[in-house]
Amino acid sequence: MIEVSVTELRDVVGRELRAHGVADDDAAILIDYIVDTESAGHRTHGLRRLTGMLTATAKTPPSGPVQIRRTSPGVIALDGCGRLGVVVAQRCTDLAIDEARLGGSAMVVATGFRGSTGALGYFTRQAALRGLVALMVASCESGVAAEGGIDPALGTNPLAVSFPHDRTPITLDMATSAVSYGTLQEMAAHGIPAPPSTVVDAAGRPSCDARDALTGAQLPMAAHKGYGLALLIELLAGPMIGGKAGRSATPGSDGLVMVATRVDHFRMPNEIAEETARLLAEIRAGRRRDPDEPIRIPGERSEHARIAAERSGRVLVDELLWRDTRRRAERDE
Amino acid sequence: MIEVSVTELRDVVGRELRAHGVADDDAAILIDYIVDTESAGHRTHGLRRLTGMLTATAKTPPSGPVQIRRTSPGVIALDGCGRLGVVVAQRCTDLAIDEARLGGSAMVVATGFRGSTGALGYFTRQAALRGLVALMVASCESGVAAEGGIDPALGTNPLAVSFPHDRTPITLDMATSAVSYGTLQEMAAHGIPAPPSTVVDAAGRPSCDARDALTGAQLPMAAHKGYGLALLIELLAGPMIGGKAGRSATPGSDGLVMVATRVDHFRMPNEIAEETARLLAEIRAGRRRDPDEPIRIPGERSEHARIAAERSGRVLVDELLWRDTRRRAERDE
Repeated sequence: MIEVSVTELRDVVGRELRAHGVADDDAAILIDYIVDTESAGHRTHGLRRLTGMLTATAKTPPSGPVQIRRTSPGVIALDGCGRLGVVVAQRCTDLAIDEARLGGSAMVVATGFRGSTGALGYFTRQAALRGLVALMVASCESGVAAEGGIDPALGTNPLAVSFPHDRTPITLDMATSAVSYGTLQEMAAHGIPAPPSTVVDAAGRPSCDARDALTGAQLPMAAHKGYGLALLIELLAGPMIGGKAGRSATPGSDGLVMVATRVDHFRMPNEIAEETARLLAEIRAGRRRDPDEPIRIPGERSEHARIAAERSGRVLVDELLWRDTRRRAERDE
Repeated sequence: MIEVSVTELRDVVGRELRAHGVADDDAAILIDYIVDTESAGHRTHGLRRLTGMLTATAKTPPSGPVQIRRTSPGVIALDGCGRLGVVVAQRCTDLAIDEARLGGSAMVVATGFRGSTGALGYFTRQAALRGLVALMVASCESGVAAEGGIDPALGTNPLAVSFPHDRTPITLDMATSAVSYGTLQEMAAHGIPAPPSTVVDAAGRPSCDARDALTGAQLPMAAHKGYGLALLIELLAGPMIGGKAGRSATPGSDGLVMVATRVDHFRMPNEIAEETARLLAEIRAGRRRDPDEPIRIPGERSEHARIAAERSGRVLVDELLWRDTRRRAERDE
């Protein structure tokens, strides 16, 4: 790992995006996303995704601006028109925040984007910072077997939920597969064995080789529960909104669904905040399995990392990845 | 197991409810619930819960009818006024269906009920039969440790989601603990060891004795993921709506949150149905880990069991439980 100033990270990413013809508005969204993700320590979903995004957008450049269709108050469908997943997810988030703050609740869905939507918790967290409870789910290329199956049937279909809590919302951001695809890629790159019950090879045999996930399949988290969640996310982000369902994925067919609602429909915000703080304190004060390991609140480690990055103006980035990115930015300019 | 006619099951349950002074409207809801749950094969959440319900309502009879407060269109809060959890969950469901069919979406929450809300999938399934996608979550007495913790910190906080699919909706109904409390009770009753990583004893040591869940704690499903889901459900059903949070539970402090939305905001119902059927067929046609075990769709086994029960007019009930219930109904009358 190497410590890099946030200013330099913004600059290098910005140059690389401009060199690939990414529009300024889109680039601004992508830079913010990568800086936050690296600050928060979500390294599998940050700078490492930049090359993939640029490849996706180089293959099929956007056909125009994001198209917005409001079917009824608080219900909005976006066609990404080939813009990048992170850009479209940000547009979803901005619209969901505006609609939910105005009308109480919102559902915003999207298809027609290219490449990954990134870490969904980045988006739900923004809504929670504005006093909303938010849920976001997305479908992606099939790589996960059904419970009892062998063939890749569903995407790793992540789910994120955020709940307001001052400046440090509570955020759960998880794949419905046993291990996220990004983590498996890291394991494969570093020769680390995949944990048991996470991967099967092409013949359906349990495997500890993370690379087998590509030729075989990933397994769902918690057996039938993760499979059930993945299938329901596939239905929401697929048949319900016109995204891909199952193995019929083509670029631009992934789907995204965000739901947000004001947290204060039923009680005053200060009552909610007090009860939330009391619950978190009670959980933290419980006995620990390992006395040296604090009991953590979902998203807490990332919130601490963000605060540290903001104070120091510096983030820790994978050294090899950083050198590669900087070299490419210089070469491409 | 013993085969019992649905008519006799309805009759026996009805007599036992009347004998305990349960109001006719509430009794009708409870009878339907128990018959459906037994028909569907959800035996830990059906007739077995009747005694617990009657104990809960005997301790503190309802103080009046369910109070309904509509804070804005599609947003409703119920105070159960001490009525039973299943009765209040049914009222939530009826209101959510009406509001969502009228306005597109609904959020209905409840506190102030006594005893268990039952199997949440029973309620979300009703919404799916009316063309709605529905999510229901509930908090319950703390019994599950936080990830890295030992003390019971959160409820088993179940989650159910249903998606429309003709007469057989797709329903996921799961506890966020590794194993549901009902299943652990069954294991304890039959001396079956609890699976690994599901229970810790009072000293926080891993245990295979399901009875230790009572003095120690249950563990969340899928480690930090289940813990995160349980905590977010606790926040929604607790601080957000005025239900209990953490260990401060008192009778009537559990919370319930239901969200429902029309499935056809973005596409025609027939398009959604076709794509859904295609996805399910594709999943079922995949290679199987065990050639003799079909790949199942969440809720499918229960739907088949319901159809069989409806055709035959008979259900399979635990024999001992059935004799006990009938004896009590005769004695109490």
